[in-house]
Amino acid sequence: MQPEQQLQALKNRLAEISDINHAAALLEWDQQTYMPPGGAENRGHQLATLEQISHEKLVSDEVGRLLDDLQPYVAQLDPDSFEARLVKVTRRKYQIKTRVSGEWVADAALANTAAYNAWGKARAENDFASFRPHLERIFELKHQYAGFFAPYEHVYDPLIDIYEPGMKTTDLKAIFAALRPQQVELLRQIASRPQVDDSFLHLDYDEQKQWDLGVELVTKMGFDWKRSRQDKTLHPFTSTFGWGDVRITTRLFPNYLSSSLFSTLHESGHAMYSMGSDISLDRTPMIGGGSSGLHESQSRMWENLVGRSYPFWQHFFPRVQELFPAQLGNVTLDAFYRGINMVQPSFIRVEADEATYNLHIMLRMELEIALMENQLAVRDLPEAWRSRFQEYLGITPPDDANGVLQDVHWSNGLVGYFPSYALGNLIGAQLWEHIQADIPDLQDQIRRGAFSAWLSWLHEKVHQHGGKFEPQELIQRITGSKIDPAPYMRYLTQKYTEIYGL
Amino acid sequence: MQPEQQLQALKNRLAEISDINHAAALLEWDQQTYMPPGGAENRGHQLATLEQISHEKLVSDEVGRLLDDLQPYVAQLDPDSFEARLVKVTRRKYQIKTRVSGEWVADAALANTAAYNAWGKARAENDFASFRPHLERIFELKHQYAGFFAPYEHVYDPLIDIYEPGMKTTDLKAIFAALRPQQVELLRQIASRPQVDDSFLHLDYDEQKQWDLGVELVTKMGFDWKRSRQDKTLHPFTSTFGWGDVRITTRLFPNYLSSSLFSTLHESGHAMYSMGSDISLDRTPMIGGGSSGLHESQSRMWENLVGRSYPFWQHFFPRVQELFPAQLGNVTLDAFYRGINMVQPSFIRVEADEATYNLHIMLRMELEIALMENQLAVRDLPEAWRSRFQEYLGITPPDDANGVLQDVHWSNGLVGYFPSYALGNLIGAQLWEHIQADIPDLQDQIRRGAFSAWLSWLHEKVHQHGGKFEPQELIQRITGSKIDPAPYMRYLTQKYTEIYGL
Repeated sequence: MQPEQQLQALKNRLAEISDINHAAALLEWDQQTYMPPGGAENRGHQLATLEQISHEKLVSDEVGRLLDDLQPYVAQLDPDSFEARLVKVTRRKYQIKTRVSGEWVADAALANTAAYNAWGKARAENDFASFRPHLERIFELKHQYAGFFAPYEHVYDPLIDIYEPGMKTTDLKAIFAALRPQQVELLRQIASRPQVDDSFLHLDYDEQKQWDLGVELVTKMGFDWKRSRQDKTLHPFTSTFGWGDVRITTRLFPNYLSSSLFSTLHESGHAMYSMGSDISLDRTPMIGGGSSGLHESQSRMWENLVGRSYPFWQHFFPRVQELFPAQLGNVTLDAFYRGINMVQPSFIRVEADEATYNLHIMLRMELEIALMENQLAVRDLPEAWRSRFQEYLGITPPDDANGVLQDVHWSNGLVGYFPSYALGNLIGAQLWEHIQADIPDLQDQIRRGAFSAWLSWLHEKVHQHGGKFEPQELIQRITGSKIDPAPYMRYLTQKYTEIYGL
Repeated sequence: MQPEQQLQALKNRLAEISDINHAAALLEWDQQTYMPPGGAENRGHQLATLEQISHEKLVSDEVGRLLDDLQPYVAQLDPDSFEARLVKVTRRKYQIKTRVSGEWVADAALANTAAYNAWGKARAENDFASFRPHLERIFELKHQYAGFFAPYEHVYDPLIDIYEPGMKTTDLKAIFAALRPQQVELLRQIASRPQVDDSFLHLDYDEQKQWDLGVELVTKMGFDWKRSRQDKTLHPFTSTFGWGDVRITTRLFPNYLSSSLFSTLHESGHAMYSMGSDISLDRTPMIGGGSSGLHESQSRMWENLVGRSYPFWQHFFPRVQELFPAQLGNVTLDAFYRGINMVQPSFIRVEADEATYNLHIMLRMELEIALMENQLAVRDLPEAWRSRFQEYLGITPPDDANGVLQDVHWSNGLVGYFPSYALGNLIGAQLWEHIQADIPDLQDQIRRGAFSAWLSWLHEKVHQHGGKFEPQELIQRITGSKIDPAPYMRYLTQKYTEIYGL
């Protein structure tokens, strides 16, 4: 076969794999949205079968041969070309999947299912002891997983690499070591100032109107509903079923305006990123985004950098007042802005504000690294959680349900995922400084409800590339430096200095 | 391998195929319910990929070898055993799929897509000439398809066999030759009598209340919502995603009560059949039902034999009056019953009443057979349609859009499917006579809103068997004779004699 034919053969196989993965994604979406309870067992089998087929097709001898044969051909192409990147990204996935033994995959699936069931019960009953053996097994398996990638610089590297291609533990440690004391200090200063009022966000808000408001906002921001839709789920998420179909979900609370509003903004940011991939990336492994952290940078930009900014509400607050005159008619724009940006250390990560969120993440990441380095034992985890929580956030969780047991991630076998959440905040702020430098009147544009220049910038610099570049590589290209926590600290400091009069 | 291991290997492979097919069914369901318009192209690829994988897994050498090797083993088992039937049903599917060439499948897919697009345009513009070459191609392909199964008794046999396993054209001709003159004569008699009034069905009916009424009725009839849900679509249908998840859809018209009401009843009948399969049939090709005609017998039983019966409305009409006092407060039960059973020859099959429906079907079946026998050319089809329509229904379609172009089936390559609709009516009535013989007070039970004896009978005799038996075989076992049109004629004659005072 000529290289062109080999490339076509590879693309055909990858297109099939993409179809199967997107079909599986739809099955998962349906599981969270519309599936009747009786469907759970069938759905489990269907997902396992599709995953198995997708796996077999990727690790096949045919794909391995095509990747090897194409190596000399792509070596002489522009390394940024579609073809060179396709082979590079596929080779990476192929190598990861082929290194891990089938036996480990089966063991991990069993351990995760058992751990997930035990976790639900343990959290409800505030009983870490019953969850402990499962968590020990999870981390035992993670050590085995890392072993497949030996030699490594750091035992945590193979775990992060799943979510942040190319990212190293050394990088993370450097980034967060610089950031943590500054965030702790900022929080200390905020806590010393009088608290702002957000009681007006906790009144009765009609759910349909909340839904309509979220839809109206993201529509005006340029969201493409022809390729999307929104549904209700217990936990909001975004799912990609191909270039033409990327869906979001939200959740509504009758007594809390912020929840659905900012979750719709957040998920729209994810979806705009996925929908923004160049169409040539469709049905390849490069569709949808470069890493979990890059994705989170986009969602947090919609949610926070834009969605919790003063100019944004200069434009939209009158409309929100119009929709909810009884609740917000007497609230000023400034009071509303302060309310949605209230800082309040709390125990639960998913409810955390912008100033405390990263502290929740750093705590988890540091504990994960300590567990992987065998510096910490699972049995000592609850105490380590409590003491670190007190140190970073100034409060101590009353129990493990509000502490070490709160997140589903570990029980699902997700270790190495948490850093992406914090990286997303940093990347978002770093991009945000560059956008503002490139579009000097951006704040005025937002004040006028004009979002097209901002979105065009994101599309050109970030979205269109999908997964062609690794996160550090992409950020370096755009900003001239690697991921850097300084812009985020500048952003937080400026914002809260203003709001809390620091 | 021992036979037990071979059987397990076959079951594993069939379970995988079932998972893939049910995943594809969910993708199709989503396409009709919630998919944003932008998703169409991705969805087409995903469905094609899943169908291809499912096909390859079924026609694999491994399955062929297992079926051959298992033959002597199952030959000594009870022929009604799960194992013997599994091998028999699988062998049938395997033989059909392996006989048809891959080239034909690809040609047919192309021809169907082109024909479907041309049909939409042709119907909108009432232009049969532009559709004619596509329909000629479809029938050319159907002749080729039949050729794969030569020698056959009749060239139409391989086409019917897809939808009604084991059914022969000779059988169909015998059944419908006996039925047609009687149905034509009954319709003639009805037309000579004063028409009943159904104007009260065409008033304003709140759509949400219509929805709730349908749900309430089927819930009281014993519908299992834990394994189902209802959504809105352009055309109502039922989809099976495994034993635990069988969903229905309906459509609502603000000015016509019958549409959503009877479509919910109809689809619930399909769904109860699919959900009624013994759970041991899950993830095998026997889950869900024995044939399209058997399925239609169940849906038409819920819709017509029960749902348009007098005792049913003796129970439920007061509730409907309560929901719609302005529309039905002054309508008597007898008037309501006559209204929902009004007979009125019309051009469009999907709007036809019980007395005329089969005539629409027979006309299509006779034309299909004549086309396959080369007794009729596609160019003469519109005229043949018109003259036969006048002969059977006493009216002539004003144009081809209301005549030969009305149904989507042929443009989708569905030839041989129509007879199932009429067979469903006949099978339903045949079973109905036997149910009433076995449960003498059935009408009283229905009058009291007690449906469990009826459903238990259906479950035991029909539902639990799924696709274990061919339709003629199952009907013979239950009723002692093959499919017989006499019970249906007795049912129609008695019903309309009463309503129209014949």
